Order: sequence, then C-alpha cells, then structure tokens
Amino acid sequence: MSGGGEPFAARLAAHAAATGSVVCVGLDPRPGAHPLTARHAADPSRAAAAVGDYLIAVLDATHDVVACCKPQAAFFEALGLPGLEALARVLDHARALGLPAILDAKRGDIGSTAEAYARAYLRHGASAGAPGRAFGADALTVNPYLGLATLEPFVAAAEESGAGLFVLVRTSNPGSGDLQELRLAEGGPLYARLADDLAARAAGLHGDRWGYTSLGVVAGATNPAATRDLRARLPRSLFLVPGYGTQGGSAADAAAAFDERGWGAVVNASRSLTYPGPGAGARTFAEVGAAARAAALAMRADLNAARGAA
Amino acid sequence: MSGGGEPFAARLAAHAAATGSVVCVGLDPRPGAHPLTARHAADPSRAAAAVGDYLIAVLDATHDVVACCKPQAAFFEALGLPGLEALARVLDHARALGLPAILDAKRGDIGSTAEAYARAYLRHGASAGAPGRAFGADALTVNPYLGLATLEPFVAAAEESGAGLFVLVRTSNPGSGDLQELRLAEGGPLYARLADDLAARAAGLHGDRWGYTSLGVVAGATNPAATRDLRARLPRSLFLVPGYGTQGGSAADAAAAFDERGWGAVVNASRSLTYPGPGAGARTFAEVGAAARAAALAMRADLNAARGAA
Repeated sequence: MSGGGEPFAARLAAHAAATGSVVCVGLDPRPGAHPLTARHAADPSRAAAAVGDYLIAVLDATHDVVACCKPQAAFFEALGLPGLEALARVLDHARALGLPAILDAKRGDIGSTAEAYARAYLRHGASAGAPGRAFGADALTVNPYLGLATLEPFVAAAEESGAGLFVLVRTSNPGSGDLQELRLAEGGPLYARLADDLAARAAGLHGDRWGYTSLGVVAGATNPAATRDLRARLPRSLFLVPGYGTQGGSAADAAAAFDERGWGAVVNASRSLTYPGPGAGARTFAEVGAAARAAALAMRADLNAARGAA
Repeated sequence: MSGGGEPFAARLAAHAAATGSVVCVGLDPRPGAHPLTARHAADPSRAAAAVGDYLIAVLDATHDVVACCKPQAAFFEALGLPGLEALARVLDHARALGLPAILDAKRGDIGSTAEAYARAYLRHGASAGAPGRAFGADALTVNPYLGLATLEPFVAAAEESGAGLFVLVRTSNPGSGDLQELRLAEGGPLYARLADDLAARAAGLHGDRWGYTSLGVVAGATNPAATRDLRARLPRSLFLVPGYGTQGGSAADAAAAFDERGWGAVVNASRSLTYPGPGAGARTFAEVGAAARAAALAMRADLNAARGAA
C-alpha cells in the first residue's frame, strides 16, 4: 500500500470498534419518498441537491453509531448529472466525517476498462479529493461474471491505494440463484466455486491484524446456511451483507456472516434507516437525521445482540 | 411500445441497411492517447471537453458508414463529472445524427435498483433529451450474475420505450471462461444455459420483421464455434460482438454471429477506429475524423465480405 493511511480492512475495523457497530447505512436516494425532496420534482437540479442535503443530514446524525455507509450508484445516476454531483458531495462528506464509504456500483469489465472504473471510484492516496477525482470511495462492489482475471485491475488499485472491494458472490434478491446456485459438474453450486477461487486469491494478499484483506465479498442475509458455508470458505474476506430488514433477513440470519470474534462483516439497511416511514414524521432535515439515528441505534442493538458483542 | 418511434431492433436494422454496415464504432476515450486531448491533461474539465470534441468528430465522420456507436461508460466515469458531461454530449450528438447508441455500462442490480439504472440510461419516448434525462442511450449492456429476474426491470423499460438490451453471455476477454464456461451438472457450459433461458424470455417479446427483439446478447468474436452455437440458441436476439481487431478476432470469426441473411449482429471495434495509430498522423479533429472514416470503411468491407453481403 502507498499513499498513506491504513488499508481499508483495518480502517473499517477501527470505525466499527469505535462506534460499537456493524451497521452499514445504505444511501439509496428516492426523491419521491420524502416531502423534503419530492417537492422539487419539477426541477432535477434542485431535486438532486435536496437529495444530497437529505443524505448528508443522515450521515451527520448516524456516523458515530454506524460502521460505514453505502451509497447505491444507480439511484444517483438516475438523477442525471445533478445526481452524480450529489454523489460526489455525499462521498466528500463521508470522508470529512471519517466514515468509510462503500460505493455500491457493481462494476465489472475487462482489462483496461476495469482499470478505468478503478480510477473512477477508488481513492488513490494523496490524489483523493483532488480536482477530477470526483468519486473518492473507500471501497467498491464489483461483479465477477467476466472472469476472475477481470478483477485484477480492481485488486491492484485497491492494494495500491488502501481501498477495498466487495465481489458479488451470493446475493439476497429473489431469483439470485438463477446463475449463482447452478450445480456444477465438479460438484457444488457456482457461488461456492467462486468463493474458493476468491479465497485462493485473498491468500496472497496482505491481511490486517484479523487476517482480513482488501478482497471482500457480498453475501446476502436471507440464507444463513449458505452464509455460514461462505464464512468458512473465505476466512480472509470481509462480508458486506445486504438483505436485512426490508428484504426479510433478520439479525440472526445475518449473524452467520460473523467470525468467532463477532467481526468480519457489516450489515446493510437502506430504506429502513433513511426513510423510516411516515410514522417518524420527520419534517426537517434535523428530524430526518434524528429518525435515522434512532433506527440505526435499534439496528445496532439488534445486530450486537445477535453477534454476541452487545 | 409507447412513446413513438420504432423499437430498437428495427431502428438498428434500418441504419445498418442504410449504411450497408454492421460496424459498431466503440467510443473508449483515453485522453492520453492523442495529442489533441493529452495536451489538456492538467485540467480535467478541459480534457473531458476535448474528449467530447474528439469523439464528436469521429461520429460526424463515420455515422453514415457504421451501424451504431458504443460509448464505454467506464472511460467517461474515469474523467469524473466533466467526463459524464462529455458522455451526455456524445449521446445527444449521436441522437441528432440518427445514429443508434449502445451504452456499454454492463449494469446489473436488483429490483428497484435495476429500475433506477434503466431510468438513468434508456431513452423513454418523449422524455428522451428532456431536462434531467442526461444519458439517453438507445440500448444498454447488462450483467446477468444477479439472476434473470433482475433483468426484468430493464426488459420492461426497453419494451416500453423502444430501447434495446445486450446481456453479457460470453465475452471475449482472457479469463472470460472462469465462470462463463464452467460445466454444469445438467450438462454443457454455464453460458449455454444462460443463452437458453434468455431465448425462452425473448420468445415472449415482440419481434421485428426478422424476429429480433429488444433482448440482445454480447457474444465475443474470439471463439467462432461458441458463437455459432449461441446464434442457433438465440434466434430472436441481436448480437453485439466485441473482440474484433485489437482483441484478436477476425471478420471470419465474427461472421459466426450472423444469421443466414447476413444480419443479426453488429461488430465492435474501439481503438482501431478511434485511435488508428500514429501512422494516421491526424493533427486536427478533421483529420481524426478522416482517419476514423477510413478505418471504418476498411472494417465495413472486411465484415461485408465475411457475411457474404458485400
């Protein structure tokens, strides 16, 4: 690693320890989902700016009770250029707060194109925040369908800059098994073979004090037996666990992603933290933040009880 | 389909027929690859603007001898917000020229997130080019690893707006077989199973006069036997064929993607058309355009000979 600072795995562990939290607050802006943003529906630039203000209020109110945040690129891209400006602002703000940011963009492409994505999104030491480095995330989600070799430019960029990766292995959505669970002639499902290949790659990477490397995985919360199997196969990979809350996964389900020390995973929730429902009655950005904080504290307690670290 | 205009498959066929060409000109901006853009390296905004000018010169000079263009999202994203502004300009310019544009972004995500990507990139009838619709492409490349169900929001958006999709099935890069060619317990490689599932889905979609639907696939040029097999499995899918030229695929290799009428596929080349090498000696945007046109004409002739439609 060059460029100063600790590797991503160690930074994420430090922030999780400092906050006593494995919560990942997902940032999926839906302008129509709250009056504070919906009222600008006629003006895309103002709507996107309001979305940025909304999410920054959430970050200000939750950064000391969550392990990290996860902006979902698609929701910003759907707002066009003003949405991408909001994404850059949100990433800058997370950095200013010292909150690790995982950009959920699920990128994946070949050789030089993968290098371009890595340049686009992963912080590069001193150049993070420099002009033209619009999107400085600490970590990126990536898609492996084009082959393990296509992950190498991402791995190289992560190793060089102290960033992290989360490779899609087993997701939590309906129909995720269409490809991921296909049975192979050699035995076992596709996702297990992919996990073993990633574990072999992670074996050659520098680990933090717990052995975790820059090469993490996405493993959905909705099938604990599969998650437990993946946890055993991938001792050097941090897990990003979607599917808690709205998607039906419980804290007990997500607990399968933790190691025997109660670490090794962060658990994401998006809508249930950032749009806690009309019941919360948040009419100002301060009230949005307070509602998000209350929801994040409840989720933190729920997960800490399940991982035996309360 | 609503929103006016023909479906993508018919529009692509019409432009290919009008130009007598199955060439897809790939737009992968590399600012350092040409003095006209490299000279602005110190200023990201000017570099991105120059990249836009460069690619627009290529489109102006080639639109009447190519079937379509394919901007590669990663190279624009690597230039930050100014790069995305350049992408929006390039897409607008292609539309003004009547040239179909396939945005190569390889997006893929779950349910509502996939909907957000579809909103971000696929033209929606009358709303194409409207404020906030920054990225109005005619078609989008998508990644299937999260499951066939996750393609449905893209299919719905494409059907509604007359846009097209190209699903990654078998790519042309080194290591592409890591997942795509894994042998399944049921027999055959993964990519063939995926192709059969996509063919079943395409059977339920509206076809153009040749039977082609909004659901196309990406099938690399570097393994003609595999391409021929896919062509037979996917009679209702247009093929986007990467791998010609720089990646080592020949016109004879790519020919396996065509149907018995010599249609059903477009063949992409990027660097060999847009950066034809120092030998071309292009020192102005007009000279860049002339070099790109000469390279596109040679590629058109090469492919037309191979598809028996010269």
